[in-house]
Amino acid sequence: MTEIKRMGYCVGGKWIQSKTDKYMDVTDSSTGEVIAQVPQCTPEECESAIASAQEAFPAWSRLSISKRVQYLYKWRDVLYAHKEELSVLCAKELGKSLSEARGDVQKAIEPTEEACNIPTLIEGDCAMQVTTNYDTMTWRKPLGVVAGIVPMNFPAMIPWGWMVPLAIACGDTVVLKANSQTPLTSMRMLELFYSEGGFPEGVVNLVTTSRTEAEIFLTDPRIKAVTFVGTTGVGKHIYSVAAAHGKRVQAQCEAKNHALVLKDCNLEATVNAIINSTYGCAGMRCMALPVVCVEESIADEFVALLKEKALAMKIGCAYHEDTKLGPVVSQKHKEKICKWIQTGIDEGAELILDGRDIKVPGFEGGYFVGPTILDHVEPGMTVGDCEIFGPVTCIKRVKDYEEGIKVMNANPFANGSCIFTSSGYYSRKFVMDTDGGMVGVNVGIPVPTAYFPFSGNKDSFFGDLHVLGKDGVHFFTRAETVTTHWFDEKAGKRDVGTWEGSTEQ
Amino acid sequence: MTEIKRMGYCVGGKWIQSKTDKYMDVTDSSTGEVIAQVPQCTPEECESAIASAQEAFPAWSRLSISKRVQYLYKWRDVLYAHKEELSVLCAKELGKSLSEARGDVQKAIEPTEEACNIPTLIEGDCAMQVTTNYDTMTWRKPLGVVAGIVPMNFPAMIPWGWMVPLAIACGDTVVLKANSQTPLTSMRMLELFYSEGGFPEGVVNLVTTSRTEAEIFLTDPRIKAVTFVGTTGVGKHIYSVAAAHGKRVQAQCEAKNHALVLKDCNLEATVNAIINSTYGCAGMRCMALPVVCVEESIADEFVALLKEKALAMKIGCAYHEDTKLGPVVSQKHKEKICKWIQTGIDEGAELILDGRDIKVPGFEGGYFVGPTILDHVEPGMTVGDCEIFGPVTCIKRVKDYEEGIKVMNANPFANGSCIFTSSGYYSRKFVMDTDGGMVGVNVGIPVPTAYFPFSGNKDSFFGDLHVLGKDGVHFFTRAETVTTHWFDEKAGKRDVGTWEGSTEQ
Amino acid sequence: MTEIKRMGYCVGGKWIQSKTDKYMDVTDSSTGEVIAQVPQCTPEECESAIASAQEAFPAWSRLSISKRVQYLYKWRDVLYAHKEELSVLCAKELGKSLSEARGDVQKAIEPTEEACNIPTLIEGDCAMQVTTNYDTMTWRKPLGVVAGIVPMNFPAMIPWGWMVPLAIACGDTVVLKANSQTPLTSMRMLELFYSEGGFPEGVVNLVTTSRTEAEIFLTDPRIKAVTFVGTTGVGKHIYSVAAAHGKRVQAQCEAKNHALVLKDCNLEATVNAIINSTYGCAGMRCMALPVVCVEESIADEFVALLKEKALAMKIGCAYHEDTKLGPVVSQKHKEKICKWIQTGIDEGAELILDGRDIKVPGFEGGYFVGPTILDHVEPGMTVGDCEIFGPVTCIKRVKDYEEGIKVMNANPFANGSCIFTSSGYYSRKFVMDTDGGMVGVNVGIPVPTAYFPFSGNKDSFFGDLHVLGKDGVHFFTRAETVTTHWFDEKAGKRDVGTWEGSTEQ
Amino acid sequence: MTEIKRMGYCVGGKWIQSKTDKYMDVTDSSTGEVIAQVPQCTPEECESAIASAQEAFPAWSRLSISKRVQYLYKWRDVLYAHKEELSVLCAKELGKSLSEARGDVQKAIEPTEEACNIPTLIEGDCAMQVTTNYDTMTWRKPLGVVAGIVPMNFPAMIPWGWMVPLAIACGDTVVLKANSQTPLTSMRMLELFYSEGGFPEGVVNLVTTSRTEAEIFLTDPRIKAVTFVGTTGVGKHIYSVAAAHGKRVQAQCEAKNHALVLKDCNLEATVNAIINSTYGCAGMRCMALPVVCVEESIADEFVALLKEKALAMKIGCAYHEDTKLGPVVSQKHKEKICKWIQTGIDEGAELILDGRDIKVPGFEGGYFVGPTILDHVEPGMTVGDCEIFGPVTCIKRVKDYEEGIKVMNANPFANGSCIFTSSGYYSRKFVMDTDGGMVGVNVGIPVPTAYFPFSGNKDSFFGDLHVLGKDGVHFFTRAETVTTHWFDEKAGKRDVGTWEGSTEQ
Repeated sequence: MTEIKRMGYCVGGKWIQSKTDKYMDVTDSSTGEVIAQVPQCTPEECESAIASAQEAFPAWSRLSISKRVQYLYKWRDVLYAHKEELSVLCAKELGKSLSEARGDVQKAIEPTEEACNIPTLIEGDCAMQVTTNYDTMTWRKPLGVVAGIVPMNFPAMIPWGWMVPLAIACGDTVVLKANSQTPLTSMRMLELFYSEGGFPEGVVNLVTTSRTEAEIFLTDPRIKAVTFVGTTGVGKHIYSVAAAHGKRVQAQCEAKNHALVLKDCNLEATVNAIINSTYGCAGMRCMALPVVCVEESIADEFVALLKEKALAMKIGCAYHEDTKLGPVVSQKHKEKICKWIQTGIDEGAELILDGRDIKVPGFEGGYFVGPTILDHVEPGMTVGDCEIFGPVTCIKRVKDYEEGIKVMNANPFANGSCIFTSSGYYSRKFVMDTDGGMVGVNVGIPVPTAYFPFSGNKDSFFGDLHVLGKDGVHFFTRAETVTTHWFDEKAGKRDVGTWEGSTEQ
Repeated sequence: MTEIKRMGYCVGGKWIQSKTDKYMDVTDSSTGEVIAQVPQCTPEECESAIASAQEAFPAWSRLSISKRVQYLYKWRDVLYAHKEELSVLCAKELGKSLSEARGDVQKAIEPTEEACNIPTLIEGDCAMQVTTNYDTMTWRKPLGVVAGIVPMNFPAMIPWGWMVPLAIACGDTVVLKANSQTPLTSMRMLELFYSEGGFPEGVVNLVTTSRTEAEIFLTDPRIKAVTFVGTTGVGKHIYSVAAAHGKRVQAQCEAKNHALVLKDCNLEATVNAIINSTYGCAGMRCMALPVVCVEESIADEFVALLKEKALAMKIGCAYHEDTKLGPVVSQKHKEKICKWIQTGIDEGAELILDGRDIKVPGFEGGYFVGPTILDHVEPGMTVGDCEIFGPVTCIKRVKDYEEGIKVMNANPFANGSCIFTSSGYYSRKFVMDTDGGMVGVNVGIPVPTAYFPFSGNKDSFFGDLHVLGKDGVHFFTRAETVTTHWFDEKAGKRDVGTWEGSTEQ
Repeated sequence: MTEIKRMGYCVGGKWIQSKTDKYMDVTDSSTGEVIAQVPQCTPEECESAIASAQEAFPAWSRLSISKRVQYLYKWRDVLYAHKEELSVLCAKELGKSLSEARGDVQKAIEPTEEACNIPTLIEGDCAMQVTTNYDTMTWRKPLGVVAGIVPMNFPAMIPWGWMVPLAIACGDTVVLKANSQTPLTSMRMLELFYSEGGFPEGVVNLVTTSRTEAEIFLTDPRIKAVTFVGTTGVGKHIYSVAAAHGKRVQAQCEAKNHALVLKDCNLEATVNAIINSTYGCAGMRCMALPVVCVEESIADEFVALLKEKALAMKIGCAYHEDTKLGPVVSQKHKEKICKWIQTGIDEGAELILDGRDIKVPGFEGGYFVGPTILDHVEPGMTVGDCEIFGPVTCIKRVKDYEEGIKVMNANPFANGSCIFTSSGYYSRKFVMDTDGGMVGVNVGIPVPTAYFPFSGNKDSFFGDLHVLGKDGVHFFTRAETVTTHWFDEKAGKRDVGTWEGSTEQ
Repeated sequence: MTEIKRMGYCVGGKWIQSKTDKYMDVTDSSTGEVIAQVPQCTPEECESAIASAQEAFPAWSRLSISKRVQYLYKWRDVLYAHKEELSVLCAKELGKSLSEARGDVQKAIEPTEEACNIPTLIEGDCAMQVTTNYDTMTWRKPLGVVAGIVPMNFPAMIPWGWMVPLAIACGDTVVLKANSQTPLTSMRMLELFYSEGGFPEGVVNLVTTSRTEAEIFLTDPRIKAVTFVGTTGVGKHIYSVAAAHGKRVQAQCEAKNHALVLKDCNLEATVNAIINSTYGCAGMRCMALPVVCVEESIADEFVALLKEKALAMKIGCAYHEDTKLGPVVSQKHKEKICKWIQTGIDEGAELILDGRDIKVPGFEGGYFVGPTILDHVEPGMTVGDCEIFGPVTCIKRVKDYEEGIKVMNANPFANGSCIFTSSGYYSRKFVMDTDGGMVGVNVGIPVPTAYFPFSGNKDSFFGDLHVLGKDGVHFFTRAETVTTHWFDEKAGKRDVGTWEGSTEQ
């Protein structure tokens, strides 16, 4: 029996073995095998990570923009060079297919490229002679240490796409609380960050720990901002506690994205897009489409085609090239999903396709759930309202656009929403009407590129400033507004107005 | 004896008499006379204000930008037409001099003008062919109902400059919790808002109430954002509670702004600027300069000149044209300030000028405090660390720039900070080094014009997005990111990539 | 017989009678009556206008943004107060209907409002620590004197919407060469500019003169920029000559906008939009739709409906409230249009509706041309290629989208272009494919609001920076890029790198 | 004797030997040896380059932003990998020192990095519900083929920094007319562009030819924009001719930058900065400081220190590591400079240091001119007014700031200008007063980084849009303004307003 590797935590660019005796298992989701263990770091260890980031801050934040951006270009090259290795690791620990895992890593690279735009993005506004002989400029100062609290589902993209690149581009330093179920990709990236990226020690630090210890990141005065991805309950807690300690927060939370399929859509293309969205990553993503509102007149045809295409998906080991649908992240998560399917049946939904008893020969220990379709999901059934985070699709049949939009907006979450139609009129109406933060018109996964804000709404997001785009830069910096005036060197004295500089009455 | 007017609250554009039996007195600060009473509105009344704003929201938010901005132009004209009337009312209820009060009203007009820039400010970003055949645009959607919680010190500027104009320009509707000590200016403005501004009913609503009832604005799910100005303790409470209920918050809090006066400054001009800043509005403003760090080599000369000019200030009835320094807002506030002066003396500061026993003939009931100077304020003295909000100036003598900046940054607040110097080198160094959110270089009150963010730091501000400027627009809106794709009408079907639209690997 | 008023020219805020003996008639286009005469100003008079603007420049350009914008708010109010008077004058001298004339004046007001956004629009970009200890800011400086050369068709919008507001908001001063056929609206606006707007003398100056004298505006070194609207031939001449004298130019030139009507359009709404566009202003506007490419399968129905609605238009005196279609600007222009109609017939087009012999009882002297439709206009017919500037609609029947876009893009002009369709797919394809600078999707007159650039392409525009929007501000200013460094006052000397400040190798 | 290499021209990614029999020599400026010959390409060959770019345009311009930017990241890596090789080649053919040549190449890399910011920079503005049910967006479309006409002095930076990166990032394709004296660096870069950069054929093409043949680039209708760097006379010609053919132009022309040295400056640091600026690149750069206005009271001391430091410069072979000052570009250019020195003496200037008879042992054939100082240069002396483009420094002694700024602004050129002072007051006054397009405060070469516009003024620049920064992106694209409306599918017909969409009255 191979010995299971016990991972360390990373402070000041060094990997250190934790003093804890509590370790958490990391499994290969396709086999169920434990492939590593990560420590539940002690409070002192968490604090040492904060201290390391704090120590690295002055030099890193004062580095010129010109020099800082060079690190990011190099880092992008490192990521491309290791893309395949990282994708395999990601597929293994999470369970998503290789193609999805490559997207996961690519979505860490793209924000790194966005961070290479920092010389443009960090520019502030200025004007001379705003009022008579007064000039004003704003410039964006880094905040200090920021904490990133990472979920299990995007081991590369979330910590290394959403959190690290813009934070460090802005001059901040970072402590990541990696996810205990899927920490390995992130840890490998941090190794590369120092060994090949050549970053100064302490710019990014990483621990794994329990939720109790993680409270430190919400209360320690050295942390200036918390960026979080996870459940709505935890998100609200984090927002509130960090707020009580004066911090900025951006909390990306749960989702139950709905698609609205109108009868004038291109049916086959629509089903292709939905298959990809609803079952990709085994449904474990906040931008999936677990609910489809279909116009009644095409609902039968739609469901039939969806089932046909769902059945055609190759289910298998995540890191095999031809697999389309891999396992979910853990046995526990599999059980939770299966329980939700039963709830749906119990609530009266019609089970069109059942993924609960899927078997993958040779991978009997894997946490597989096959594509599942529940039809006739009605208002009031919890299966159509709550986040399941598995390959389970709920069909809600609607009379027309008006009923469809009403059903969608009734959901408490509003991360993304999609419409499938060939009509310009309804696409525009949908953009106006929907509560969704990210909206797709004939797009199954309406995640924008890194240059635009990733932006949920309602119970899917808490805070003001979204992830990435210009919002990301604003989240990781604060505006300093400078007003300048110079006394005339030749005039002896001077009388200033009541509201000198700031206004002219 | 004249009967004291009992004010109502305003819901749906109508003024209604409260059902409460608890009323709070509003006084003329220069005489001590009670000039009105305002209700402590009941929870039901507060909720009716929210309901009114909620009801007005759909129509107001869907109005085209072109039409919405016309209301704002008109409103600007109304404010200019009533500027003098409003200034007198403001001087009377608060106690600030007429000149300061005119600035107060002007600083409500300027943001209204900024709100007239909404067609420019609300533009989002877009690009076509972001990825192959996918286009992305962001546009800024209004939030819904926003609550404004108002302090006593800027009866016109804070509710009607910082809160209302951009909120309504963005399509939101508003509930103001006016300040109970100084509500009359704000109430008169709301009267004009409907009677002359012609706004649709319910776009802005106003109550006065106690802090207990005001919790409704932090918890009611219809409120999407809370903008607050007040003490740090309350600010943190609001941030935390509103956060726990999923809301956006911007909380402008306490300040203890420091100036750094270098020996190469233009001394007379510097003292003029500081006099204006430290004693203007009787020190009751968060952008005053209650602390001056002076280089030791010019400290004696500086203090002597400051005292001379402070003594020359005309103290009197706020709404008399020649008054430079009026009273503070209340007897209670006067007592608090006087207690702080005593604390300073007890802590070992040297009392250079004592404003405690000032008498203004004919205005014996007024809440006057004269200019006060405490010299040799040392680290550890609370009088030099805490917000007093009165005409009390603390002198901290420092060896040089380096000691000065260290003393300044040691303070927990960081709203504004100023340097007085003729040196380009030190002015730039100061901008880099200071913790201050708003920075003045030879500017005593470094409040920017409305087109730049009003932005504190550390314990002076909680939240992400500042007041006014582009930040203000972002606070009152959320980004909706739309990604569009159209299936080729001639091609029958189509296969989408794994991460279709959002990235190209 | 009433004496005909001989107008002056305006220099330094004063109206002066010209020394010329050459005067040009201004007529009431609905009656043919001469209502005023304008001088062909002498070269010296033109130069005095430039000198006046030059003299006004230093004070105007140094005025703070805060003060300058106040003039614009006032000016907006003046324009609204005189809107009806100006609209009638405009309808009378040009011939456009009252409703169109009100739009003309409104489109002078809207850019004035955009100019009120100047505090936002004029902000430059800045960043500190761009390279180690170097900071950079850009700010936008005014240019000096700009010349505006005005066509006949928008007496209010072009000089007072496109030219004056942003120029003066940016700190420039202006010389207008008003159009000799339709100068009166512009002259009346300039009277109001000084008498009610209260602008400093010389900020805007106005002459009328011949093309020969107007060369002065292209060659005089005091003129820094020329903004022109007129024919393509003159536009190219102006661009070339002014360029040879080192000036900036924006030249808006001829147009022959095409619409593409697809078979899936909403036919009645489409015809309504096209009627409005193709006959509005009697076709004398560069954003009209004089050519309609219709898919063959709906062409007969389309033409029949177009004819029916064209026949229903009330033709009459421009300034009568119920008139839908007024006269064209002059007898000469009427003759030119009628000649074009004959050319169309001669080239083989089918005359569906003939507007040449229209009579308006009581207005026999008016220059009326009725709605005219030429069907089956084929490639190679000049009537379908050249600008006619009259109420003449050419129908080009096309097989499908592909042939339609090919026909449209073959035209040398590309000011605007429109598609009428309910298809999202074709609307996006059209936006990608069209050469048009301004594009309408189901919009007959795709003129954007003043906050976006008015932007032609190909032979419809010469220069880089478009009219209005942010482009307008950039046209009327130049960027000054400032890089700042301060030598450490404590370090005695310093060695600078080879490329100090500008890059770090 | 080695055979001299006859270079080809590059069309469609292929290097082709010209059919011309006219070749121009390229020399090693340090030895005078001919190292290559370049063809005077025939008109047909020039046209084939245009045709190639035209052919490459459709595919390149339609490539998604996401894909296009990947080429630029790769290209950046290629340039870094070849930086040293390119720097040596640049030093050899031009004569600038290795350190300067490395800066030259670095300033091609930095704009390539700016071009990697294209996903941010190319975003347009958009807004929904601009007017009721109308939405507007602008997006920036590529122009087509752009021509770059290159001067001798920055073989890497100008073609490959200012011209190529943003043009291709924007989707345009390029024809470079390389400089015949210094073409080799540019040719080598183009080789790498295809061989290692992997760009599609025809995206960049390159010819060398005479000025007569180059007229093709000003008149050919396929060229949409011309970007030029060279003399003012040629620049005006290009602007005018290209304008007459409807093209955009940006023409960077001659300069005679002045510094203003105030008596409160840090003298030694100031002299260091000026030495670097005035003699770097042997004065052959438009951002050098060939004129220094010094306050009389420190002028003697300043001149003495300048002479001392000038004498200490190591003159030698350009590509030797320890050389500080290399040769000028050609024998002819050396003679022109020497003639200017004599003119200065003849006009009455005092020759403080004479660089005419410099000898470099072992490099007797090199075109060396040593540092030269002319003192007491007075108004009216041509040596102080005209561009010399050699290591010749003119001292203009001035009484004070006021005289200094007057002398500076009297010069017809205004590319850059600098002030050396420790005074915040004078630095701000200078920024307001100077005509300079790029301004340095204690910066000898006020070239901004690539993220800000490189922007001359007066006779130093013709056109509107500057090089690099956001201006660069605007120069290489045109705005398409799209207004969208969708007819209500349920409502049968619809009546549109007169000015539908564009304004609401």
